[in-house]
Amino acid sequence: RYGYFGKDTPEVVRLMFCNISGCLTDGKIFMSVSGEAMVSVNTRDTTGLRMLQEEQVEVILLTTEKDPIDPALLQKLEDRIKCKVEKVGKEPLNDLKSIVEKKKLEWKDVAFMGFDQADVKCLNLAGLSAVPDDAPAVAKKAAKYICRCAGGSGAVRDFTEHIRLQKQMAKSQREHDRIDRHNF
Amino acid sequence: RYGYFGKDTPEVVRLMFCNISGCLTDGKIFMSVSGEAMVSVNTRDTTGLRMLQEEQVEVILLTTEKDPIDPALLQKLEDRIKCKVEKVGKEPLNDLKSIVEKKKLEWKDVAFMGFDQADVKCLNLAGLSAVPDDAPAVAKKAAKYICRCAGGSGAVRDFTEHIRLQKQMAKSQREHDRIDRHNF
Amino acid sequence: RYGYFGKDTPEVVRLMFCNISGCLTDGKIFMSVSGEAMVSVNTRDTTGLRMLQEEQVEVILLTTEKDPIDPALLQKLEDRIKCKVEKVGKEPLNDLKSIVEKKKLEWKDVAFMGFDQADVKCLNLAGLSAVPDDAPAVAKKAAKYICRCAGGSGAVRDFTEHIRLQKQMAKSQREHDRIDRHNF
Amino acid sequence: RYGYFGKDTPEVVRLMFCNISGCLTDGKIFMSVSGEAMVSVNTRDTTGLRMLQEEQVEVILLTTEKDPIDPALLQKLEDRIKCKVEKVGKEPLNDLKSIVEKKKLEWKDVAFMGFDQADVKCLNLAGLSAVPDDAPAVAKKAAKYICRCAGGSGAVRDFTEHIRLQKQMAKSQREHDRIDRHNF
Repeated sequence: RYGYFGKDTPEVVRLMFCNISGCLTDGKIFMSVSGEAMVSVNTRDTTGLRMLQEEQVEVILLTTEKDPIDPALLQKLEDRIKCKVEKVGKEPLNDLKSIVEKKKLEWKDVAFMGFDQADVKCLNLAGLSAVPDDAPAVAKKAAKYICRCAGGSGAVRDFTEHIRLQKQMAKSQREHDRIDRHNF
Repeated sequence: RYGYFGKDTPEVVRLMFCNISGCLTDGKIFMSVSGEAMVSVNTRDTTGLRMLQEEQVEVILLTTEKDPIDPALLQKLEDRIKCKVEKVGKEPLNDLKSIVEKKKLEWKDVAFMGFDQADVKCLNLAGLSAVPDDAPAVAKKAAKYICRCAGGSGAVRDFTEHIRLQKQMAKSQREHDRIDRHNF
Repeated sequence: RYGYFGKDTPEVVRLMFCNISGCLTDGKIFMSVSGEAMVSVNTRDTTGLRMLQEEQVEVILLTTEKDPIDPALLQKLEDRIKCKVEKVGKEPLNDLKSIVEKKKLEWKDVAFMGFDQADVKCLNLAGLSAVPDDAPAVAKKAAKYICRCAGGSGAVRDFTEHIRLQKQMAKSQREHDRIDRHNF
Repeated sequence: RYGYFGKDTPEVVRLMFCNISGCLTDGKIFMSVSGEAMVSVNTRDTTGLRMLQEEQVEVILLTTEKDPIDPALLQKLEDRIKCKVEKVGKEPLNDLKSIVEKKKLEWKDVAFMGFDQADVKCLNLAGLSAVPDDAPAVAKKAAKYICRCAGGSGAVRDFTEHIRLQKQMAKSQREHDRIDRHNF
């Protein structure tokens, strides 16, 4: 926890996982007669994710096998937001564990944004975790932070600002600790 | 009401009828110049229906003759949610009666989710019944449970959680009754 | 005002004018890259208009020259709701006057649902008039009734129920008056 | 500030800049499987912009390089609202400065509607400035006026009415001042 850090070193959170359905989208899938599927993504949320990426936090979007989002649509999301999309199974933790380990991170360095019952274990484990304001009760109980916005209406942006604030606070605390050690 | 039940036996509700327009959707039909019709369905609602199905509750979606949803779109809904879609007439009860009888169920074993005036008789009759928070007053008065969410925004999920809770309560009550009979 | 009326005679309101943009729709026009325009219409509103039509109230939908709704889309709306669409100019009253006169009606027999500044004169003149809850202040001031719902989310349904209630009250008042005259 | 003005001379604000994403739209980009992108624009907002234009206020819509709105879609918006669309960079002020100077205006004659962090400098500088009710906190702090509506749901209309009211108040104040000078 103590020691010297260069100014540009990212603090605490280095990786953010974010559900697509219900977090980045409002959970609505538009279906047309001709078979065209549509989802909507909010500019303020993608701006928030870009701000995190600029502070060297890697963002990975999550989709589940049961997620009714078309693979072609996921590809488009991936291109637009310029981050990886991972497909997770019934228990997302099983899939994300290996990713966290490969990156030599600990779960306390991970931010996780989920929406529903399947996300409970990850919400409990991640150092920072959040759900949108309109998430089911079971997920809300597990999250460390409840966004003031609904999914697709700024919840992701809200969480990214929460993460950035935590990073700033951790950084200034560390600076403060360093000064203390030099003076006493 | 008393007797021995295996652990996995579903409790009370075995069949759920659910209106598509206004319950599973927000009631909005998108129309385009080229004639393309679109409706939206929410992930949290389809997740809720799947949870019920996993607990051996059969789900049947309802559409009316006056419903402006295209047959091709209904087929897509049916595929996506993996449950039957029934077309009902001006008085849905007439159509649903025979379905309930064929399955050798009583109306107290049925959960019904409706939205408007046409659904009043079914809302009165079903053992568990609900309308979304934004339903017209006439349907709200007849429903046994009023969801906290609007149609297409989690109302169906809300009702499925209400049903599961009722089933758990009925089950634990029955367990309790059984223990009582053994002890006294 | 007094006299004998058959049971099925419609009371007070015989004609309803209803703006499309902002009343029947939420005012949003979806535009796509390929040039496809889309608007959404709510099932509860179309159900409300059908209920009025069944009580012998004629419904005429209004669109303005400035309205950015495509003519092909208007045609679709017309087909779906089974009522005429009239195009009105900068001052809708000028266009609607002749319609009201041709039908040998007075403005007190007309229900008008508007949304914006252009509708103020008609809102003032019509026997029953309403705006959605999210209408601009200038229109809200002129309307006799302010719906509890926003445009495209049940405002039209709300107003049609208000009209039907007024008709019932007028009818029972008239019945009451008739009994009084017979008794005294 | 004092002097004689003809009746039709526009007062104070002569130019309005307005962000597209988050102000004129609700920030949502709809994406379809086939690659079709869609945004929605509200009739009440375009009516508001037209009212301003009729009072000789020039309206310029803004889009950023990072804005995920397709150029073809921008062209459609430009045609529909009949006003110029300018592309701005990371710091919009740099691009807008030269426009304001070319028109020989001062920033106090400019109305600016923004949404996010990038707009803070312009929000501070413009004579009248606003953000939608659902804008991020950083932009809300900088804006002189916070609209009562969310972006895409009447925020632009709200601001245009605010501008027209300010213009009327400035005009009547000036009339008042002129009378005072004549009388004393």
